[in-house]
Amino acid sequence: MTSSALLTDHYELTMLSAALRDGTASRNCVFEVFARRLPTGRRYGVVAGTGRLLSHLSDFRFNPAEVDFLLDRGIVDASTAEWLAAYRFTGDIDGYAEGELFFPGSPILTVSGTFAECVVLETLILSVLNHDSAIAAGAARMVTAARGRSVIEMGSRRTHEEAAVAAARAAYLAGFAYTSNMEAGRRYNIPTTGTAAHAFTLLHDTEQAAFASQVATLGKQTTLLVDTYDIAQGIRNAIAVAGPDLRAVRIDSGDLSVLAAHSRALLDSLGATETQIIVSGDLDEYAIAALAAEPVDAYGAGTAVVVGSGAPTAGLVYKLVEVDGRPVVKRSENKGTVGGRKTAVRRHKPTGTATEEVVVSMGAPAPEPNDRALQRAFVRGGALVPDLPDLATSREHLRQCLISIPWEGLKLSAGDPAVPVQMLGGSV
Amino acid sequence: MTSSALLTDHYELTMLSAALRDGTASRNCVFEVFARRLPTGRRYGVVAGTGRLLSHLSDFRFNPAEVDFLLDRGIVDASTAEWLAAYRFTGDIDGYAEGELFFPGSPILTVSGTFAECVVLETLILSVLNHDSAIAAGAARMVTAARGRSVIEMGSRRTHEEAAVAAARAAYLAGFAYTSNMEAGRRYNIPTTGTAAHAFTLLHDTEQAAFASQVATLGKQTTLLVDTYDIAQGIRNAIAVAGPDLRAVRIDSGDLSVLAAHSRALLDSLGATETQIIVSGDLDEYAIAALAAEPVDAYGAGTAVVVGSGAPTAGLVYKLVEVDGRPVVKRSENKGTVGGRKTAVRRHKPTGTATEEVVVSMGAPAPEPNDRALQRAFVRGGALVPDLPDLATSREHLRQCLISIPWEGLKLSAGDPAVPVQMLGGSV
Repeated sequence: MTSSALLTDHYELTMLSAALRDGTASRNCVFEVFARRLPTGRRYGVVAGTGRLLSHLSDFRFNPAEVDFLLDRGIVDASTAEWLAAYRFTGDIDGYAEGELFFPGSPILTVSGTFAECVVLETLILSVLNHDSAIAAGAARMVTAARGRSVIEMGSRRTHEEAAVAAARAAYLAGFAYTSNMEAGRRYNIPTTGTAAHAFTLLHDTEQAAFASQVATLGKQTTLLVDTYDIAQGIRNAIAVAGPDLRAVRIDSGDLSVLAAHSRALLDSLGATETQIIVSGDLDEYAIAALAAEPVDAYGAGTAVVVGSGAPTAGLVYKLVEVDGRPVVKRSENKGTVGGRKTAVRRHKPTGTATEEVVVSMGAPAPEPNDRALQRAFVRGGALVPDLPDLATSREHLRQCLISIPWEGLKLSAGDPAVPVQMLGGSV
Repeated sequence: MTSSALLTDHYELTMLSAALRDGTASRNCVFEVFARRLPTGRRYGVVAGTGRLLSHLSDFRFNPAEVDFLLDRGIVDASTAEWLAAYRFTGDIDGYAEGELFFPGSPILTVSGTFAECVVLETLILSVLNHDSAIAAGAARMVTAARGRSVIEMGSRRTHEEAAVAAARAAYLAGFAYTSNMEAGRRYNIPTTGTAAHAFTLLHDTEQAAFASQVATLGKQTTLLVDTYDIAQGIRNAIAVAGPDLRAVRIDSGDLSVLAAHSRALLDSLGATETQIIVSGDLDEYAIAALAAEPVDAYGAGTAVVVGSGAPTAGLVYKLVEVDGRPVVKRSENKGTVGGRKTAVRRHKPTGTATEEVVVSMGAPAPEPNDRALQRAFVRGGALVPDLPDLATSREHLRQCLISIPWEGLKLSAGDPAVPVQMLGGSV
């Protein structure tokens, strides 16, 4: 297993060295992950990546290869190297469930243990959560815009090759139906799908020959890409080759609203009334919403999904909030940060609609009917707690959360957070 | 070694199945990577990731684990599985050197071989080049804005944990001086550096205690973070603890222009005339440029670097341009695509300033004085050619390229590509 231990910033290791030397390394600390604000105009954030993060914990090991590198570079001294070689996280991790919504100040992850064991996890925790949460939030907006039609993630080629796998997972969490990414299919058991590229048509002597080959190999339950030459002729060729039972055609260019309507009419006139129309080509949530009235059956989304649709990182930070039971907070400017370990509940009307999130420092909110506690245990004494939710469970959790917020929260336009956060007590 | 073979889209494997069955899989093909346009307002693109891509080629292997997955899922048939198990790329790859500039239509990578062996590489090639080129282009603008002052990459926490390592590499290619990412230090031998987090100060009973601990462990050649409580007091504490030989202080919040000037005056008044000032906190190329007149010694850049400073993907596509010697092109709409394998040169004035890039399809440009051929061999018959440039060489190449473009090309404002591309011949 490759170690994830060097997916870490230099300063964590030098802070560790100094803290080991001065004795503060063993102080009991609480670090919290939260966002000071949502990306401009966004109405909610989506917690994503927790499952990936927890599985990374077990390969966060300073093996001889990692330790030797740090010693050779003079980044740590011998006693720090020894400590790292023995490193196992022995503390606790709590947090919002994967798929939960978050708002400014929501304490989405709480890491407690000694300073030393918590500080070295900062970069890995933030990398995973910032990336995956950004992708999931944008993807959730696309799913909302699609109004029940399927959305297919096909953006792997537009992002880093490993980020692509994580992006496919986050998009699936957000309600996408499929991914094109094979590794995501294998690693996370996400349904995969694909059509064909223009190259496949160009490879053949004629479009008909390409379609005939695809149908011969993959059957009529395939999707033929009809826009390499002329779309209307492409559709005629597709139905001529596959017959009216062809599952779907894909259109990847041009004015998709006009083309979808024309293509539907043409398919119907050819008797292919059940043949679906899949559209793709620079679709984001706005382009998807603009196609709501058109006869489109599924959307393929690429670039916009994997870059978080304009917000490629979630703005999450990892802050020390408590040392040996005392709340601490950076004071050089007012960033609205509150010290102390937080407890969070979301309040709801009897109908189930969320009304506010209450976050209390160094205590717990006074209980009210229809409160839902937002934090749960992930790690106890360094070990994963049993029965952590799987990806399908998290996906359903997000679906329910999006039903619970006020309807304004699902608007694509810029606006305030869908649920206000009340931060109580403990301000230092 | 983990296989990279499933960092691939579903459709590549189904196209492969069909092409193997109908006999077109063995047709000789040329695929080209290019961008139809630069991100809005950008004046140049930077080729980055080539080195990473070429090293991925050797682990692009369909081992039993990969083949079994594809068979189990019914994505490929038995004969395709057999072909994949034996897969080795045996073709040629040529392209622009890593660190070279590119413009709309520049043929930055040319992959030739059978359809089968080239088509399966599409996603991996585009993922690597789209990500790394996007990061390098944004980072290069920051380096220009910094006007010779050092820029430190510290954005790992804002992007996917593996993308972070590649981003650190791309930023170094673009002229950044250091990264905070330890794995990038190990994997690519990039100089690493770090300061301290606010957590380290908060951990201690007093700021002085934190500074004293850091200096005791790391010496005076360290950087003290002075903005946890009060910056002026932080600077006094830093010099009181470390003396006027302290290497640097870092300021991570507030109005950096005002604070830099005040901090410089205060340091000077304390006799710390050589102590440097490092600033960080949401710096992009514009914020860096705005600090040009302030007494700043180095910039720490985070989020903006790893998300490509507003352009998180480079828009590169992988298109089939030639089949068995015939140029091919998608025709359903005019995207300005020209079929056929391209040859590219950049033309220069006798002074060395680039004047245009000439790209010729199915031939070569008529030679002119001061032409520079832009393509070189990377792979021949499936094997890497010897003496491929290393990262340091590519970094210097980019530095020279940026000197060669007209000065307008280095402006941060939106504008046309710095060098026009003339596309000649072969339009089909």
